[in-house]
Amino acid sequence: MNNEPVIKHSANAAAAPAPAPVTVVGLGLMGQALAGAFLRAGHPTTVWNRTASKADQLVAEGARRAPTLGEALGASPLTVVCLTDYDAVRDLLGTSGADLDGTTLVNLTSGDSAQAREAARWAAKLGARYLDGAIMAIPSAIGTADAVILHSGPAPDFAAHEPTLAALGTVTHLGADHGLASLYDVAGLAMMWSVLNAWLQGTALLRTVGVDAATYAPFARQIAAGVAEWLPGYAEQIDRGSFPAEVSALETDARAMAHMVEESEAAGVNAELPKLIQAMAARSIAAGHGAEQYPVLIEEFGKPSGG
Amino acid sequence: MNNEPVIKHSANAAAAPAPAPVTVVGLGLMGQALAGAFLRAGHPTTVWNRTASKADQLVAEGARRAPTLGEALGASPLTVVCLTDYDAVRDLLGTSGADLDGTTLVNLTSGDSAQAREAARWAAKLGARYLDGAIMAIPSAIGTADAVILHSGPAPDFAAHEPTLAALGTVTHLGADHGLASLYDVAGLAMMWSVLNAWLQGTALLRTVGVDAATYAPFARQIAAGVAEWLPGYAEQIDRGSFPAEVSALETDARAMAHMVEESEAAGVNAELPKLIQAMAARSIAAGHGAEQYPVLIEEFGKPSGG
Repeated sequence: MNNEPVIKHSANAAAAPAPAPVTVVGLGLMGQALAGAFLRAGHPTTVWNRTASKADQLVAEGARRAPTLGEALGASPLTVVCLTDYDAVRDLLGTSGADLDGTTLVNLTSGDSAQAREAARWAAKLGARYLDGAIMAIPSAIGTADAVILHSGPAPDFAAHEPTLAALGTVTHLGADHGLASLYDVAGLAMMWSVLNAWLQGTALLRTVGVDAATYAPFARQIAAGVAEWLPGYAEQIDRGSFPAEVSALETDARAMAHMVEESEAAGVNAELPKLIQAMAARSIAAGHGAEQYPVLIEEFGKPSGG
Repeated sequence: MNNEPVIKHSANAAAAPAPAPVTVVGLGLMGQALAGAFLRAGHPTTVWNRTASKADQLVAEGARRAPTLGEALGASPLTVVCLTDYDAVRDLLGTSGADLDGTTLVNLTSGDSAQAREAARWAAKLGARYLDGAIMAIPSAIGTADAVILHSGPAPDFAAHEPTLAALGTVTHLGADHGLASLYDVAGLAMMWSVLNAWLQGTALLRTVGVDAATYAPFARQIAAGVAEWLPGYAEQIDRGSFPAEVSALETDARAMAHMVEESEAAGVNAELPKLIQAMAARSIAAGHGAEQYPVLIEEFGKPSGG
């Protein structure tokens, strides 16, 4: 991850189409960051927030404050929405009688895939085009390549507005299912917290023998980055449904897992993460996969807990 | 990780000291790989195994088969041991009356830190210098830079034999505590399995909406590699014992964790990993750390389970 800016300066208007107008509804910390990035990229930016004073700084930077939500929606072909939750989006846009006919909404509010699909349904009924999105970034990263923003919904609607959305960061379209952005988001968060937890587990263990966190961190970083490289190859095993033990068999892994649990318990640190790793593998071995390779655990991960 | 070979060819003996003699005891798949790497690097290599025929291939490649364990130990200043477990090492070397006086043992047998420290004690009583090690590689990687081999024990003993041990891969000395190699090993394995499990969790979730594993894998790889880069900075928070919410506060993370659990349950995939992530954070929030940043969870990871 880097801080390479992705904002587009358009002083030379002859060289590219003029930046399209855009509206931002919802000016919490994230909404303000989104509007600020559009402004810096040269987009005529209209903003609206229930508490109007939240727009003051943006207006000072060149944004136009719409006096009503309706005027905000009417000011631009594209409205980016970022509110507290999906209930707030629905209350504001889905049931308030706001005129959405012909509007394209990009909803970057945090929520789950069911909420995204439901929002797509009511938006369609009200005549709006709708893309759901998930922001995998903090407000201060918005407008840099570090800000990964996932979108899902009809591909033509994304394509029509990608030049505008690109002002926000690294924008990606995942597919037509409106739930995909939320699903990728939670999958990515599970990876983020898992890397952090594994690092905390190792750090806790090594601190018991006087190794400080800074000494261990580069080793953890190397392992995480190295294992990340295996994933595309392992994915092929899953898509083929064939898990030959080219590197290591599960029953061999299980012996090292036992050491991992024992070391954590002996050191007096938390052992729940090691035990969960061990338990998932033990179930797969009990299901007859001991001679196969780790990705065969997809069968356990694909089943409901306790199922 | 790459396949850059680290074997040293020494056809031009005038340019460097002659490769030192080395003995390998234990010729399972890993032991054979270790001896093969020493041979390819030009080290006069003596081998011994209880079942002598396991040495046949190595002898064909130029190894010397010692008729007795005593002769194997006497043939080289350094003996690398790789047996099934620490009991086997103790039975063979610690209690058999083998003459270890003046020998340096590098024990690469899989085991835990308590076993490593115990082995160091009996080796010292028998007059041997002792280094414990952990091999973070599969046999086919031995002799390449991909084979990370961790060592712990007295630094001068590692320094004395590092030129020989370097034939095996990327060799590292972690510190004087003989248990360190095993502890780093299990910490690294916890990271490896955590990255794999998080990837399996995301893969299982996305397969429920028709996204195949190969489509999701590059995204998972990017997240894992990106988060790995944060670890050294987060480690500084741990070593300072100060966790200001520069990026995100735990109580904000907790809302996204709830989405993660809900999405897994709604999709009918396993939710134990998301629930463990959520539970660890919930405990830290309950302990008053909701306004702090994720690495504050070191306090939970540092406590015994249920403690």
